[in-house]
Amino acid sequence: MIAPQKAIHYERYEFRKWESHDAETIVESPVSLTVNGEVWLTFMCTPVNLEAMSVGFLYNEGLLESMDEVEDVRVCEHGDNVDVWLNRSVEQPQSWRRTSGCTGGVTAVDALARVDVSFNGDQPRVAPEAIGQLVERLFESQELYRETGGVHTSALSDGEKIVLVAEDIGRHNTLDKIAGLCLMNDLWPETRILITTGRISSEMLQKAARLQAPILISRTSPSSLSIEMAERYGITLIGYARRDRFNVYSNRQRIQLA
Amino acid sequence: MIAPQKAIHYERYEFRKWESHDAETIVESPVSLTVNGEVWLTFMCTPVNLEAMSVGFLYNEGLLESMDEVEDVRVCEHGDNVDVWLNRSVEQPQSWRRTSGCTGGVTAVDALARVDVSFNGDQPRVAPEAIGQLVERLFESQELYRETGGVHTSALSDGEKIVLVAEDIGRHNTLDKIAGLCLMNDLWPETRILITTGRISSEMLQKAARLQAPILISRTSPSSLSIEMAERYGITLIGYARRDRFNVYSNRQRIQLA
Repeated sequence: MIAPQKAIHYERYEFRKWESHDAETIVESPVSLTVNGEVWLTFMCTPVNLEAMSVGFLYNEGLLESMDEVEDVRVCEHGDNVDVWLNRSVEQPQSWRRTSGCTGGVTAVDALARVDVSFNGDQPRVAPEAIGQLVERLFESQELYRETGGVHTSALSDGEKIVLVAEDIGRHNTLDKIAGLCLMNDLWPETRILITTGRISSEMLQKAARLQAPILISRTSPSSLSIEMAERYGITLIGYARRDRFNVYSNRQRIQLA
Repeated sequence: MIAPQKAIHYERYEFRKWESHDAETIVESPVSLTVNGEVWLTFMCTPVNLEAMSVGFLYNEGLLESMDEVEDVRVCEHGDNVDVWLNRSVEQPQSWRRTSGCTGGVTAVDALARVDVSFNGDQPRVAPEAIGQLVERLFESQELYRETGGVHTSALSDGEKIVLVAEDIGRHNTLDKIAGLCLMNDLWPETRILITTGRISSEMLQKAARLQAPILISRTSPSSLSIEMAERYGITLIGYARRDRFNVYSNRQRIQLA
C-alpha cells in the first residue's frame, strides 16, 4: 500500500531570506482499474479508499447499481491496481473505447443521458445557518488537508451531520469515493447534501445527480455548464460557501428564507 | 462560436440578508477533437484558443513536433469540434490515463516515457525578485478571471516578460493552449519559464517538461509525484508563489541566492 502523504523537504524564500522546511505533501499516484480481469483505465489519485473509489466510479458512470453485483474488489499488494470482479459480464462503454480512455467530456456526455433524475419541489429544506455549519464541519473533517494542503475534500450530509468524508488530490475522485463508501457501507441517507472544497464542473454536477443529492454546496465556483445542468436536474447549486455567506445559482426554493 | 463567459444570475446570502446579483461565469463546454477525420476525445474546456489547445494537446502528448505536420486546423461553425488534419497518418495512443486534472483530464500513460528531457546545470538563472514579478504579471494578465473568477491562467515567460497567456477552466488545458500558441506563432523563446495559477500534478509537470521549460512556478501546491518528476527532469519547481515569497521543491540552484 502507498501512504496518502509523503515527507518532503523544501526551501522557503520570504523577507529576502531562505528557510528550510520539512513537510508532508499529498500523494498523487497512478492506480489502474481492472474490471473482470481487463484493465480499463488509470486513475491519478490519492491512494486512500481505493476500493471505494473504484466501485464508486463504476456506480457514478451508471455501470453498477449495488454491491450485490460485486463479487470482489481488492487493491493489489503494491497499491497500484484495483481488481473489481462483477457477478456478470460488463462491456467497457463504447465511447471510452473510441476515445481510448475516459475523458471527462466523453463520459460526461454519455453518462448525462444515463442519469435519469429530476428533483422536484422544495424538499429537502435547508436553513441558511445549516449551510454555514456544514461548510465548517467539512473543514473540520479535513484530515489530509491539515497535514499536507493541496487536497480536495467532499462530504455527504444527511442534513444534520456529516455522514461520510473523502479526500483526494482530484476533486472528481472525492465524489467517486463518496459513492463507493455509500455502496460498501450500505449507507444511503434519505436526505443527501453534498459539500465539497472543489469547483463544480459538469462532471461534479453529474456525479451529484447520480448520487441523488438535490443540494450541492461548494467552497468555490461553478462552471456555466454545471449551472445549466443543475437547473435541468432541479439541483440546488450553492457556491462560495463560508460560515456566514454563500451564493445560490439554481433552485433557491430549498433554502428557507431568513 | 461560443463565448468564454456567460451571463448568470445568482442570489447572495450574507449578514442574514439576500441580495440579487448579475455576473459572468466561466464557460465550460464539451469540444471534441477530430484528427484526420476520426473523433479522438472530448475536451471539457473554455472555448477560447481552441485551435491552439488542439494542436498543443497533440504536441504535449508527443504526437506532433511542428506546424509543418499540420495541414489544417479548424474549429467547426458550432464551436464544439476542432478538426485537425495532419500531413500523415497517426495512430491514436492505446492507453489514456485519467488524471486528477480539473475537468477530468486525459493523458497517455506512455507520454511520460516519451518526454526525453533532462535539464542540467543552473541555467537559466532567475532572481527571487523576478519570480515575484512574474507572478504579479500573471495576475495582471488574467482577463477572464477578472470577469468571471473560477478560471486558471498560465503564462510563458522568456525570463523578463510574459510572452504568451492562456486561460481555461481546466488547468491542464492552459498548458496545451500555451504549447499550441508557441507552435502556431512559431514563438519559442530560448529561456522558458512557465507560471500558472493551477496546482502542479504529474500531468502539469509532464507538459512543462515537454515544453522544455526548466522552471515551473505555481501559485499553489505540487503533488508528490510532480516533485519526483521535477527532480528526475531537473526542473526547478516553485509553489505557493506570491509577490514576495515562494517555496522551492527541487533544483534550487537556478535561483540566485539573495
